[in-house]
Amino acid sequence: MSEADSHAIHTELDAIAEALAKGKRKRVRKLLRAMHPGKVASVLEALDPEQRQAAWQQVDDNTEEQVLRHLDGLMAAALQRDPQDDDLADDLDEDDEPGATTQIARVRDALEAGKFKRVGKAFKQMHPAKAAGLLEALPPDERSSVWDMLDAERAGKILVHLHEEVRARLALEMDEDELAAAAQKLDLDDLVDLIQDLPAGNGRQLLQAMDVRKRQQLLSMLSYPEDSAGGLMNTDHLSVRADVRVGSVLRYLRLLEDLPDHTDKVMVVDRKNRYQGVLRLSRLVTSPPEAQVGEVMDGEFKAIDVSLSSSEVARRFEDLDILSAAVVDDNDVLLGRITVDDVMDIIREDSERAMMNMAGLNDEADMFAPVLTSARRRAVWLGINLVTAFLAAWVIGLFQGTLEQIVALAVLMPIVASMGGIAGSQTLTLVIRGLALGQVEGGNARLLLGKELGIGFLNGLLWAAVVAALAILWFKSWQIGAIIAAAILLNLLCAALSGLLIPLLLRKLGIDPALAGSVILTTVTDVIGFLAFLGLATLFLL
Amino acid sequence: MSEADSHAIHTELDAIAEALAKGKRKRVRKLLRAMHPGKVASVLEALDPEQRQAAWQQVDDNTEEQVLRHLDGLMAAALQRDPQDDDLADDLDEDDEPGATTQIARVRDALEAGKFKRVGKAFKQMHPAKAAGLLEALPPDERSSVWDMLDAERAGKILVHLHEEVRARLALEMDEDELAAAAQKLDLDDLVDLIQDLPAGNGRQLLQAMDVRKRQQLLSMLSYPEDSAGGLMNTDHLSVRADVRVGSVLRYLRLLEDLPDHTDKVMVVDRKNRYQGVLRLSRLVTSPPEAQVGEVMDGEFKAIDVSLSSSEVARRFEDLDILSAAVVDDNDVLLGRITVDDVMDIIREDSERAMMNMAGLNDEADMFAPVLTSARRRAVWLGINLVTAFLAAWVIGLFQGTLEQIVALAVLMPIVASMGGIAGSQTLTLVIRGLALGQVEGGNARLLLGKELGIGFLNGLLWAAVVAALAILWFKSWQIGAIIAAAILLNLLCAALSGLLIPLLLRKLGIDPALAGSVILTTVTDVIGFLAFLGLATLFLL
Repeated sequence: MSEADSHAIHTELDAIAEALAKGKRKRVRKLLRAMHPGKVASVLEALDPEQRQAAWQQVDDNTEEQVLRHLDGLMAAALQRDPQDDDLADDLDEDDEPGATTQIARVRDALEAGKFKRVGKAFKQMHPAKAAGLLEALPPDERSSVWDMLDAERAGKILVHLHEEVRARLALEMDEDELAAAAQKLDLDDLVDLIQDLPAGNGRQLLQAMDVRKRQQLLSMLSYPEDSAGGLMNTDHLSVRADVRVGSVLRYLRLLEDLPDHTDKVMVVDRKNRYQGVLRLSRLVTSPPEAQVGEVMDGEFKAIDVSLSSSEVARRFEDLDILSAAVVDDNDVLLGRITVDDVMDIIREDSERAMMNMAGLNDEADMFAPVLTSARRRAVWLGINLVTAFLAAWVIGLFQGTLEQIVALAVLMPIVASMGGIAGSQTLTLVIRGLALGQVEGGNARLLLGKELGIGFLNGLLWAAVVAALAILWFKSWQIGAIIAAAILLNLLCAALSGLLIPLLLRKLGIDPALAGSVILTTVTDVIGFLAFLGLATLFLL
Repeated sequence: MSEADSHAIHTELDAIAEALAKGKRKRVRKLLRAMHPGKVASVLEALDPEQRQAAWQQVDDNTEEQVLRHLDGLMAAALQRDPQDDDLADDLDEDDEPGATTQIARVRDALEAGKFKRVGKAFKQMHPAKAAGLLEALPPDERSSVWDMLDAERAGKILVHLHEEVRARLALEMDEDELAAAAQKLDLDDLVDLIQDLPAGNGRQLLQAMDVRKRQQLLSMLSYPEDSAGGLMNTDHLSVRADVRVGSVLRYLRLLEDLPDHTDKVMVVDRKNRYQGVLRLSRLVTSPPEAQVGEVMDGEFKAIDVSLSSSEVARRFEDLDILSAAVVDDNDVLLGRITVDDVMDIIREDSERAMMNMAGLNDEADMFAPVLTSARRRAVWLGINLVTAFLAAWVIGLFQGTLEQIVALAVLMPIVASMGGIAGSQTLTLVIRGLALGQVEGGNARLLLGKELGIGFLNGLLWAAVVAALAILWFKSWQIGAIIAAAILLNLLCAALSGLLIPLLLRKLGIDPALAGSVILTTVTDVIGFLAFLGLATLFLL
């Protein structure tokens, strides 16, 4: 070993030892990657056993063997001694295993023990969607440790499956060129999503890293709203002209060797790229080679307008059971296609969003976002609720005189409010779903109102009787029983009325009924419940 | 006209007039259908104008022209005079129309005006999924009127898209042989669904009406649970052997002319029908005809076990972006296939169910079920809530002495309970989603708990301060302010704890957290809220 070499090793050794001491694994990884395997071996030999193991975890999988060859046998064996190495990958990759509930624990244990190689290998072997799910279940620092272990291509595939906030954060953790490399491998529609989630500056950088043709396609796709057909479409469709023969189409496809994913049909266009219909692969393979495309295509199959909303696109895919459809502009010019895999994502996301929005949460937020960030986000919802709670308190405050004289009223009043809230939310949920399915509208709202009032009346009678009986037993007062019964009946009728009218009204105002409906409803049933119960008591008991 | 003929006409005329008077349109329809068009014309002539119009609405579309030919011109013209006849069909079939919100109203108006022909025509022209949606939005009697106008084939297609309760009811409204005719046209998986929704006796009858081969297939499919891969699969898959050549497969497909819907791949099996892999159509069309199936098939593509739950099937389709997959038994024998269209339905249904269940509703129930039926169903949920409400009331009852002395506590106490409920439901929703995605489990629950407690603490501090300030302004009492602040902070911490622990515990007990979680959580936050607030007040203010 020459003087210069030895010096170089010592500089690098120091750099690596320092990075290890500071826990900068990514830096260690980079340093090691830039070195010849022989040098890596020398560095490993020079480190103390603990540091050696830590440094080894950052050696690239591809150079692993070469590095081992430069080490003496004992040390090589010691570094490789991790009999469970493959178990983790197998464990995590196996869906049906009974112990599957502790996957997250196993990953976290391995990270804790510094077995980054093992974790990295496991994440490389599992499906990107699953890897994304597991990543989101890790706290941010552990998430970053895993993320560092993944190569650009794999990282790109996983990014596609993450929720927006986590996606943006992990993408920003990558170097500019790593991110660009990851992005190269993505489908255009996924790339569009990624760019939209990044801060504007980083998005622009990423766009600049693409070649001209791709960049232009991306720019045109970025011009459509995210939740429209234009934002969903991909431009990897195949198109043929109606006057070619089936045999030629087959020869053309054979030349391509690999068709774009989810190709179940080829689009048929005219000379000006205007959409004419579709030629299904299933029809293509059953047609005689000498037939013309125009004869065997389906000219009835409608294309999707580029401005159609994504929910409507999803609804159409579901109703018509389609796998892919063409997207056209106002002049029927073919722009791209939407495939059913993206539609499935939309259906799932829409339902997730509805559920999260009902609790005032953002469905794309990171479960492990910093406490302060999460607290601030949720505070808004609590603040809105506080206003409604004070409204109810104000109503109670009107009857302080009554409450002072009959304290039993204070004990019973939450029951009236709560029964109204529950009954109202049943009507509300029914109507919100009906609105989403297009099954509730002016044409049958009156009818539904009659039915809901009927149900409210019957349940009002039933539970008014039950509560009255219990109240009489408890407070030995017939009057209180009668008054709570009347209040409950009244509140359940109001609940039915508001459960129907509030969402209809919100919809008319352009507000998502699932978002605001239940807060407003609870306010109404609380106010009416307290007002009716305490008001009646003031009238009849004092 | 002979005496006998005239007599026959009069008997039939009486029968029809009587049925019309009683509003038995279905009977009129049947009587008319059994008659020669000439006779139908004579009957129409003999009726008074109003009855004539009503009877005309029940004349079968296919014999319409022949009947008109037997009528005198003026009468024929009068019967046909309904210039908007085609408008309804067009209106209802057009999705993107701005006036689309009044579709239900238009159908109901047409039914009201007795224009059954017009409505029937419109329902025949629109897509079955849409027809099903519209039918569900009609009250039961109008639904039946429309249903009577549909032929068996169309009725069958619509049945597939209905929710269970409505489906069963409408199927039972059909004659036995009508239903059997409708069933003949259905895919096997849809037929299995239908049979499962019918009362056992009717299901058996329907099974008996099928030919032997179909019946056997149905019986084997019925033996799997409805929400398993076996319950989802269809048996219309194509399979080939690995040792055939691509050219032979293409010839074989060409002989079939029409491939089953959603065929994107052909299953590859061995001599004993054991699953080997898949041959994608997109690969098939790009492979040289002389290649062997075994060389171009995908042997890595996993089949689905027949006992896998439908949610897991959906998850796999989503994660792996697949369009169809083979279903196999324990010995890898190919049983059928699942296609993405059914998976989309599952995703939608799962999310609908979760939302409805959270309000204690059944997602498959008829929106227009009889009031008594609906009231009984919902009563259960109200009863459960009543128990929890009384629990909260009992806690308040413990502090009657305190409340008598400081009535302000009664005014403010709902605020404490409500803030806890809202904060808790945010944590609960987050955890329920996390459980559904497999992102919350023992491995990171402790970490999440720390985070949620942190958020609860921060928001507790913030809103405790706000509420305390307002309470002090309102009731001019520093003590009350301090006590409500402490109670809110405490309740928000408890809310975070319960929001995380309740769903984890329910899951462990095998109870769906979405179903019971929010009732239990509200009970906890109510009880803790009242207990903390009134308890602290009793300790420090009395």
